[in-house]
Amino acid sequence: MKIALAQLNCHIGNFETTARKIIAAIKQAHHAGAELAVFSELAVTGYYPADLLEQEAFIRQAEATIQRIAEHCVGIAAIVGAPTVNPDERGKRLFNSACFLCDGRVTAIRHKSLLPTYDVFDEYRHFEPNTEFQLVEYNGLKLALTICEDLWDDQPVSNRFAKAKLYRTSPMAELSKLSPDLVINLSASPFSYNQEHWRKHVLVTQAKEYGLPIVYVNQTGAHTELVFDGGSCYVAADGSIPVELAYFVEDFRVIDTEHIVVSHPPKQERIAKIHSALLLGIRDYFGKMGFSDAILGLSGGIDSAVVCALAVEALGADHVRGLLMPSKFSSDHSIADAVKLAENLGIRYDIVKIHDAVDTFGSDLKPLFENRPPDITEENIQARTRGILLMAMSNKFGNLLLNTTNKSECAVGYGTLYGDLNGSLSVIGDVYKTDVYQLAEYINRNGAVIPQNSISKPPSAELRPDQKDSDSLPDYPTLDAILFRYIEQNQSAEEIIAAGFLRETVIKTIHLVNKYEFKRFQTPPILRVSSKAFGFGRRMPLVAKYSV
Amino acid sequence: MKIALAQLNCHIGNFETTARKIIAAIKQAHHAGAELAVFSELAVTGYYPADLLEQEAFIRQAEATIQRIAEHCVGIAAIVGAPTVNPDERGKRLFNSACFLCDGRVTAIRHKSLLPTYDVFDEYRHFEPNTEFQLVEYNGLKLALTICEDLWDDQPVSNRFAKAKLYRTSPMAELSKLSPDLVINLSASPFSYNQEHWRKHVLVTQAKEYGLPIVYVNQTGAHTELVFDGGSCYVAADGSIPVELAYFVEDFRVIDTEHIVVSHPPKQERIAKIHSALLLGIRDYFGKMGFSDAILGLSGGIDSAVVCALAVEALGADHVRGLLMPSKFSSDHSIADAVKLAENLGIRYDIVKIHDAVDTFGSDLKPLFENRPPDITEENIQARTRGILLMAMSNKFGNLLLNTTNKSECAVGYGTLYGDLNGSLSVIGDVYKTDVYQLAEYINRNGAVIPQNSISKPPSAELRPDQKDSDSLPDYPTLDAILFRYIEQNQSAEEIIAAGFLRETVIKTIHLVNKYEFKRFQTPPILRVSSKAFGFGRRMPLVAKYSV
Repeated sequence: MKIALAQLNCHIGNFETTARKIIAAIKQAHHAGAELAVFSELAVTGYYPADLLEQEAFIRQAEATIQRIAEHCVGIAAIVGAPTVNPDERGKRLFNSACFLCDGRVTAIRHKSLLPTYDVFDEYRHFEPNTEFQLVEYNGLKLALTICEDLWDDQPVSNRFAKAKLYRTSPMAELSKLSPDLVINLSASPFSYNQEHWRKHVLVTQAKEYGLPIVYVNQTGAHTELVFDGGSCYVAADGSIPVELAYFVEDFRVIDTEHIVVSHPPKQERIAKIHSALLLGIRDYFGKMGFSDAILGLSGGIDSAVVCALAVEALGADHVRGLLMPSKFSSDHSIADAVKLAENLGIRYDIVKIHDAVDTFGSDLKPLFENRPPDITEENIQARTRGILLMAMSNKFGNLLLNTTNKSECAVGYGTLYGDLNGSLSVIGDVYKTDVYQLAEYINRNGAVIPQNSISKPPSAELRPDQKDSDSLPDYPTLDAILFRYIEQNQSAEEIIAAGFLRETVIKTIHLVNKYEFKRFQTPPILRVSSKAFGFGRRMPLVAKYSV
Repeated sequence: MKIALAQLNCHIGNFETTARKIIAAIKQAHHAGAELAVFSELAVTGYYPADLLEQEAFIRQAEATIQRIAEHCVGIAAIVGAPTVNPDERGKRLFNSACFLCDGRVTAIRHKSLLPTYDVFDEYRHFEPNTEFQLVEYNGLKLALTICEDLWDDQPVSNRFAKAKLYRTSPMAELSKLSPDLVINLSASPFSYNQEHWRKHVLVTQAKEYGLPIVYVNQTGAHTELVFDGGSCYVAADGSIPVELAYFVEDFRVIDTEHIVVSHPPKQERIAKIHSALLLGIRDYFGKMGFSDAILGLSGGIDSAVVCALAVEALGADHVRGLLMPSKFSSDHSIADAVKLAENLGIRYDIVKIHDAVDTFGSDLKPLFENRPPDITEENIQARTRGILLMAMSNKFGNLLLNTTNKSECAVGYGTLYGDLNGSLSVIGDVYKTDVYQLAEYINRNGAVIPQNSISKPPSAELRPDQKDSDSLPDYPTLDAILFRYIEQNQSAEEIIAAGFLRETVIKTIHLVNKYEFKRFQTPPILRVSSKAFGFGRRMPLVAKYSV
């Protein structure tokens, strides 16, 4: 059978554009001789609409869009992901469904059985799980329609308990009893650099276990924190993957299951993938929110340099503006490095000194401070003064402020609320400092964009004389290794110590992560590139007594 | 049987204090001749520990605490809520359980069947639902142990679809087949002023339907956004409620199911309950986070006056400090009203004029603003300057900043990010402006604490000359009625218009709510008093195209 894999970038709630895109892909598939076009999970609404699924008008729009798309399925069938209403009077109101469109109408609907409800996933909040299994027959083939997690029945309850399995049922075990010829999987599987190998492992394992080929169609594009990387593919019954679509962009391919033509996109290294994910995350945040221009503070340090370079690649040099805001603690090289960066990138930049505003706050507050010695307060006033200046520029010119905090800082609370933690979007808040260095090297792969001095000098917040990050934090390779074990791998303090880290360093680090939960409660959305980003996927209580 | 209802205020993760509290209550119950002491849902951990439930050390501490408590159950039994490990190799790792402690050990464990996964609830994220039903026999009585939502099997899938039921199973229907004598329900049911009648309705309906008495023990106290109101009770088999414990405080009562002595706490009106909920919310936020002192900005308006009065009642006048920050647009009466309030409350206050700092920002930014006319930018600079001053005082003196934004403003985006939206805790972010007026009248019930002028003058942000809220918003009674229908009742624009509101006003209001989702993404935790507060219980996508 000739099948089109339509890997699209959806926009939540933008039914008009989505319908046009899907219909265009169906026409393209039809012209190319395909009998079937396959789209991603919840393609009609975009993934994940969250509580918009509780609005009746939203569901009615999704239904109307499916009907409209169905009218174009003449001489070709399509499988499109959409929420559908549960006809039963018991259970949640919706199913997460694959709609089979044929002869101008919806001829079959199959529902998702395994609803992920961990990390960033909330599907059980809105959907009733499927418990009945049926194939769809079409043009002589029996198709097993599955949706994303349906193939992940064998996954462990957590990476700590690999033996215990999260799910009690196996959709493929049920469907295979009905002797299908082909498995279709509609996905909305977000990128994470440290778990992407699992996706292929699952597909290969399921294909081999049941001796069935799988047509896998994933979404691409970004929605707030989540970046979907695409990489749709055809998995043969022997577990080989002869066809793989592009990553981080829309793609379209017609395959003939009888005569597979091998094709793969160029391989990307880990850091190149993170780079692509962040570009897509920035581009879609701006594009889907209706903004074109960004502003950010340039300190001369590596974090703002990397974010600035990413923004320029995502939005164009004419759409990015830098603000240099030196204080009396800023070193000369900071300004020089920031200017060099802006010139290398060809962006507009301006310099505003903050000392007048900081001094004014100082004299305004002097009578209230009762001669208390300078402390973190004065450092925060500097960071917050910069925050005001950046937001003023954002308000006046209608551009969005990019946050430049990295994951290591974000974890240990090394940042000022309402100061450098401001922003519409945190670009590298899920990238550890050690990976920020690698990103900088990657960005410089064809010549120095980021000044070498920004990369090689010791990191400093420059909020007091001769301050260095290393004054109060362990070196970044050590810090990041501890953080990765605690956050991504969910290891305990004792486990991390047993792995060879100093007890004092481990305890101090974990203590800081827990102590600064309140700062992360109010920070911007963070582009997620790991298996555990701060934000929606990591739900820690604010008011609680933590044991470390 | 003599049963002690132990309504405690737990602290998430504070196992040591919790164990001592529970053991003390068991001893007290024993001395009073009780055979059984009943505690609330997840009493051992506090509700809700969220992703701390994924940390193995946390689960081990919960287990150890249950064992420690069990050792004190000699001559008396206790039923205590706790997470327990699922022994099955399939399904989620934990159950949400009721542990029956007797003869110094855990003699039975029953699990929660219905796991709420809507609004603020995330229980399916961590827990496997129970599917097997068994009673517990003790001292000649057969007890049906249920946990909170287990009694709510009949609730509608939403208030829009009252006929469709959310759950497919009914724990009480199953348990009643086993002929129990008494139902025990361990709860952690948060307060909401517009849904509290449902709780009694559910208890009464279940008691009558199965002809069984119910011992209902709810948690009290607050955790971040959620305020638990207690109100534990004994429901007789005829549906009457002869015994009811206090609201918003810890309480303890031994009842004899053979000889019920009627007792009820004093009745409270709706606004008095909201008042109590907010006091408890403030007190527990500070107490459980280890802080004693608050600071807030006093504008002379009603919102900051109400929050200040609440803070003084919750924390004491010596622990609240006000900052008056007039600008050139502040009216004389604003300062006078704020001073009057501070003097009425007996709190320390200081006055810092913001014009120097605002002017400095103005001249710093002038070269960058390219002669563009003043707009929202200049208003935001004033709000953010105040934000810096308040945070500086907070940093210097170690007190927490209270946010004074009300729900009406929060809904329509009428506030400045990193300015007046700052704070550790939003006290009235779930209280509509019309209810803020009622709170003010309630606070003044025994004499004027809040100056009458703050109540009677037209609301204004005073960020430009002669500004009034009514310049850009509908009158508050209209605005609040539309917002309540859209947010709490989940009505569509067409439904609200059909109810008699002007189309233009409805469309504009809903548009503002949707447009300013990004501001609410970064605001402080909001004390929840309604059935749908902004924050964790209302998960709207940020990047999305909204249809209004």
